[in-house]
Amino acid sequence: MRKRLSFEAFREGVLGGDRVVLSQAITLVESVLDADQELSARLVQEILPFSGQSIRIGITGVPGVGKSTFIEAFGSWLLDQGKKVAVLAVDPSSQLTKGSILGDKTRMEKLSSDKRAFIRPSPSGSTLGGVSGKTRESILLCEAAGFDVILVETVGVGQSETAVKNMVDFFLLLMLSGAGDELQGIKKGIMEMADLLVINKADGENLDAAKKAKVNYQNALHLFPETENNWYPQVLLASSLTGFGLDQVWKNLEEYEQKMKASGFWDRNRSGQRLTWLDDQVYYLLAQVFLKHPEVKQKLEAEKPKVKSGELNPRILAQQLLDLFLSKS
Amino acid sequence: MRKRLSFEAFREGVLGGDRVVLSQAITLVESVLDADQELSARLVQEILPFSGQSIRIGITGVPGVGKSTFIEAFGSWLLDQGKKVAVLAVDPSSQLTKGSILGDKTRMEKLSSDKRAFIRPSPSGSTLGGVSGKTRESILLCEAAGFDVILVETVGVGQSETAVKNMVDFFLLLMLSGAGDELQGIKKGIMEMADLLVINKADGENLDAAKKAKVNYQNALHLFPETENNWYPQVLLASSLTGFGLDQVWKNLEEYEQKMKASGFWDRNRSGQRLTWLDDQVYYLLAQVFLKHPEVKQKLEAEKPKVKSGELNPRILAQQLLDLFLSKS
Repeated sequence: MRKRLSFEAFREGVLGGDRVVLSQAITLVESVLDADQELSARLVQEILPFSGQSIRIGITGVPGVGKSTFIEAFGSWLLDQGKKVAVLAVDPSSQLTKGSILGDKTRMEKLSSDKRAFIRPSPSGSTLGGVSGKTRESILLCEAAGFDVILVETVGVGQSETAVKNMVDFFLLLMLSGAGDELQGIKKGIMEMADLLVINKADGENLDAAKKAKVNYQNALHLFPETENNWYPQVLLASSLTGFGLDQVWKNLEEYEQKMKASGFWDRNRSGQRLTWLDDQVYYLLAQVFLKHPEVKQKLEAEKPKVKSGELNPRILAQQLLDLFLSKS
Repeated sequence: MRKRLSFEAFREGVLGGDRVVLSQAITLVESVLDADQELSARLVQEILPFSGQSIRIGITGVPGVGKSTFIEAFGSWLLDQGKKVAVLAVDPSSQLTKGSILGDKTRMEKLSSDKRAFIRPSPSGSTLGGVSGKTRESILLCEAAGFDVILVETVGVGQSETAVKNMVDFFLLLMLSGAGDELQGIKKGIMEMADLLVINKADGENLDAAKKAKVNYQNALHLFPETENNWYPQVLLASSLTGFGLDQVWKNLEEYEQKMKASGFWDRNRSGQRLTWLDDQVYYLLAQVFLKHPEVKQKLEAEKPKVKSGELNPRILAQQLLDLFLSKS
């Protein structure tokens, strides 16, 4: 890492919308060094009053659904509407470079070359608890820097969807048209988390299939229970290639924002997310300290096979580990 | 609590299939007293080699679906087949006596008066982490006492379904027939966790509606992705009133057991569940100690509103709480 900026330089740079400083601030947030963590925590605290005004949109979908081209197209469309767009990614497995799309910036040439946009590849880090906290803080920094639409992409497979759902206002699920087996590959519960389904690649020869898929999805959604915010997720068609449908996606988002702000759900949801975040952080930090404890680590590795095979009561091992931790920490 | 039995008396009683001692052993497991916890951990450890031979079945469904009558009917049917049946419940909210069905034993008159059956109301305790560990140990105790079918009922709403899914071999979702809106009230992801859907009350005037509902559910299930164990959940009809369909439910269970044992999934699933259990226990114990810490508690209560309103970065508070905890614990 280059020579660190001063706290004031970070603060002024981020609040002034300087993309280079913003990028360095996010690097600071992502750093695991103690000194960096202290500084970044202070920085985030400082910019809090200037955050919160964006619409935070989570975007998910299976590999191959065209997430990055959709984000490129939708992001560019938003820029044309006068919006400032930031793109972040959550990928707990990015260290292994499996499926990290945003790491390949060339795929979003238009967006990444536009100075009204800000694109940030996924943070490194192998645990979701760590990664999601960093992404939450990156969102706040982007907002403080003046970005008013934040697109948070889930990358890879696993639990990143739930993590992203817990940090955004709106969750968009990208789907592909296909014959009958549209839901193949969609993980458990993802569809029910969605506030909007968008069938991507609705162009050319795909258009008919996309229209059919739309009906199928709509029928499936009817079977789902009402959500606590009384929002009925729509199914829309879109094409990243032709731009078809992107305006409808935004219209749906605006309608959501308006209704949820009117009902109070918008603020309630964000307040709840902040408490979840606190919970995540507490458990993440506790687990970090716990699992780094040398005796705990050694004992856990030695005894875990016995738990797995059913020879040892997990409660006994858990208590032994806790005793080790509390006596020597 | 009455005078406690000796360790040997507990051990012999449980292994001898004494229902009174089994009941006391579960009370011991549920006790929050340190001395009881130590004894129960030892007891569970001692009986581990004699546990594991049952089929553990989770049963869930919305209130009003007829869970207790189904368990009464299905349990009695199993007794007639020569099985020994234990019924347990997981209800994180049972302290408040909202929706705790098994607390009302009179609803299962037939089962509770039969000495080949064992019925246990939900353990008291307000946190899922605590309750689920106790239920896991109760399952092992019942197995050691010779019960070969364990029915674990989820009670109330919330996350108890996931907890139960993580401690059973097979997850059965009870449904009601109805017009169109069958899934109303079914929580997110529950349907996807199910290994079998049973439409209850398929009798008399309800039969036609139940048959229609069966088709609807089957279509909905087709949209769900393949699961890791390659099992395709069926939709079956049953009546607790007439006994119709109970044999098919059991047949499906037996088929599942046979296939999953052959593929190795059965053992893999249980091994994974044991590690999840260890994880749960570690976090549960850590959280207990953490949240009981006087300074942590005080600070958390004082600062939480600031996190909720967005004034305070959760990471800062989490770190402060951890520092308090580690400096004084």
